[in-house]
Amino acid sequence: MRERVLSGMRPSGKLHLGHLHGALLNWAELQKNFDCFYFVADWHAMTTEYANTGNIKQDSFDMVVDWLSVGLDPKKSTIFVQSELPEHAELHLLLSMITPLSWLERCPTYKEQLREIKTRDIHTYGFLGYPVLQAADILIYKANKVPVGEDQLPHLELTREIARRFNSFYGKILTEPKAILTKSSKTPGSDGRKMSKSYNNCIYLSDTPEDISKKISSYITDPARIHPTDKGHPDICPIFALHKIYSENVKEIEDLCKKGEIGCVKCKKMLAEKIIKSLEPVHKKQKELKKNPAVINDILKNGREKAGKFAAQTISEVKKAVKLINSD
Amino acid sequence: MRERVLSGMRPSGKLHLGHLHGALLNWAELQKNFDCFYFVADWHAMTTEYANTGNIKQDSFDMVVDWLSVGLDPKKSTIFVQSELPEHAELHLLLSMITPLSWLERCPTYKEQLREIKTRDIHTYGFLGYPVLQAADILIYKANKVPVGEDQLPHLELTREIARRFNSFYGKILTEPKAILTKSSKTPGSDGRKMSKSYNNCIYLSDTPEDISKKISSYITDPARIHPTDKGHPDICPIFALHKIYSENVKEIEDLCKKGEIGCVKCKKMLAEKIIKSLEPVHKKQKELKKNPAVINDILKNGREKAGKFAAQTISEVKKAVKLINSD
Repeated sequence: MRERVLSGMRPSGKLHLGHLHGALLNWAELQKNFDCFYFVADWHAMTTEYANTGNIKQDSFDMVVDWLSVGLDPKKSTIFVQSELPEHAELHLLLSMITPLSWLERCPTYKEQLREIKTRDIHTYGFLGYPVLQAADILIYKANKVPVGEDQLPHLELTREIARRFNSFYGKILTEPKAILTKSSKTPGSDGRKMSKSYNNCIYLSDTPEDISKKISSYITDPARIHPTDKGHPDICPIFALHKIYSENVKEIEDLCKKGEIGCVKCKKMLAEKIIKSLEPVHKKQKELKKNPAVINDILKNGREKAGKFAAQTISEVKKAVKLINSD
Repeated sequence: MRERVLSGMRPSGKLHLGHLHGALLNWAELQKNFDCFYFVADWHAMTTEYANTGNIKQDSFDMVVDWLSVGLDPKKSTIFVQSELPEHAELHLLLSMITPLSWLERCPTYKEQLREIKTRDIHTYGFLGYPVLQAADILIYKANKVPVGEDQLPHLELTREIARRFNSFYGKILTEPKAILTKSSKTPGSDGRKMSKSYNNCIYLSDTPEDISKKISSYITDPARIHPTDKGHPDICPIFALHKIYSENVKEIEDLCKKGEIGCVKCKKMLAEKIIKSLEPVHKKQKELKKNPAVINDILKNGREKAGKFAAQTISEVKKAVKLINSD
């Protein structure tokens, strides 16, 4: 039997190139060798967005459209919405009983986010506990592997610790998941920072060719270059970072830039063409899906049924182990 | 329509006179005027007993036997097991998102129990959150009234605050429950302290007449009385406290004791007879139920179905309000 991979994403609406290179292409690739479970983490969205939940459904829909348009295949993967499976909430509650507060309070991302998120009040019980919810999400499917970036490794380690603690109390029921470390992808936005909706610097998977051309032409480049013949520094240029993803002739572009033999305008135009071309099949698929939204609902319904069987099985084993229900 | 009352009790196995006079007789009385929901709080048991869950099922069974034997009537009340209704866990998760940590950390009983419970490590996420679980238990049935002792008033106030906060974010969905204040009952155990399993000073509802006689005769009384003719101080005597519950001729007993005209042995014997007599119908009912344990399972199954309809209805309204599912 193939090993099981699990990953989720908060419903963030339409996705951008940062999502594509940071996660989605990897998710699509994993389908070849694993039994993949990918879910819309709508409960997680509430840990920070509880005061502003109006768009969760639409954002979930748009996100799943983008997932499918870049190659997630419902024939290969189980695609579902977290909040449709109450078993996640049940396991979360049970795991909360054995999770020491200190494990959560010392979680590096917790302290970091408390410092960084200033526009919303996240001093809530749910926000403190979101690593417990993540643990439940993973453990309920007995996932063997979880693709994570280096920054999320402490969370996965917490999941492993919670699983070990559970198993030490109640017997070996839960599976300790292992990380598939995804190398951090450099997908800069138009201002040179990491591409992020909140920075308003994104190229979306659903952007039209015109949008893309316009956005690429608005990118900052090497600020030292005033004239097209000035010598450039591609290593600090976000356009060059994108060329590294999208162009085959990277070495050539690098040389031309360094020698001042290609201007930024031309260099950007070349990049825009590559990105537009690469998104052609994505746009085609998006168009198909949006013409027939019932397809998405069917995919999520099937995903819920398939995930539900696993989740019900695990929660039953868990409740027997904890002695909340009698063994057969 | 009658107002709804909700209350729960941790599965503590066979119950004693403290439970009877502190809660159960009141529960039975409430059946006359309210639509009552009474549940086995097995998830709550895990907040402190997560390392020792082996007896939950048996303790739940024994407790429900005792509930029924003292007059809880499944024809009038909905009797069920908390962990059989995943909607409690779902609502708990959703409420956790909007519950400020400070509300929980400042809860007087939380700090008190952290100080007092030394034999188990309760510095867990679940223990911190048990008032949120209580809130979910109450709000999922839109209970109008909750019978509480004075010490639990802060918890009910927390439930009301959580309901208000939810309603302020998502619209008026949840009902703010009101307290039915139950006067604290004085049911001393054999050592004069509050009757409690952990003090090993209890008279159980299932104790035989012989047990009861023996236990009553072992009660401490006024330590100043050496001889039956010494003048007594009934106001500090646990036997007299029980006479106040069980005897009609309280004034007479008080006078005889104060004048040294009745000895403790005789006084205890009178009491034991009263308690034994009052428990006769209870014992009869217990015997019937234990002969046919399937009755209990049927009652809990019916209770689960009836409670489940309410819970499913509320969780659906809640998820629509939060926008996790679309409105019809």
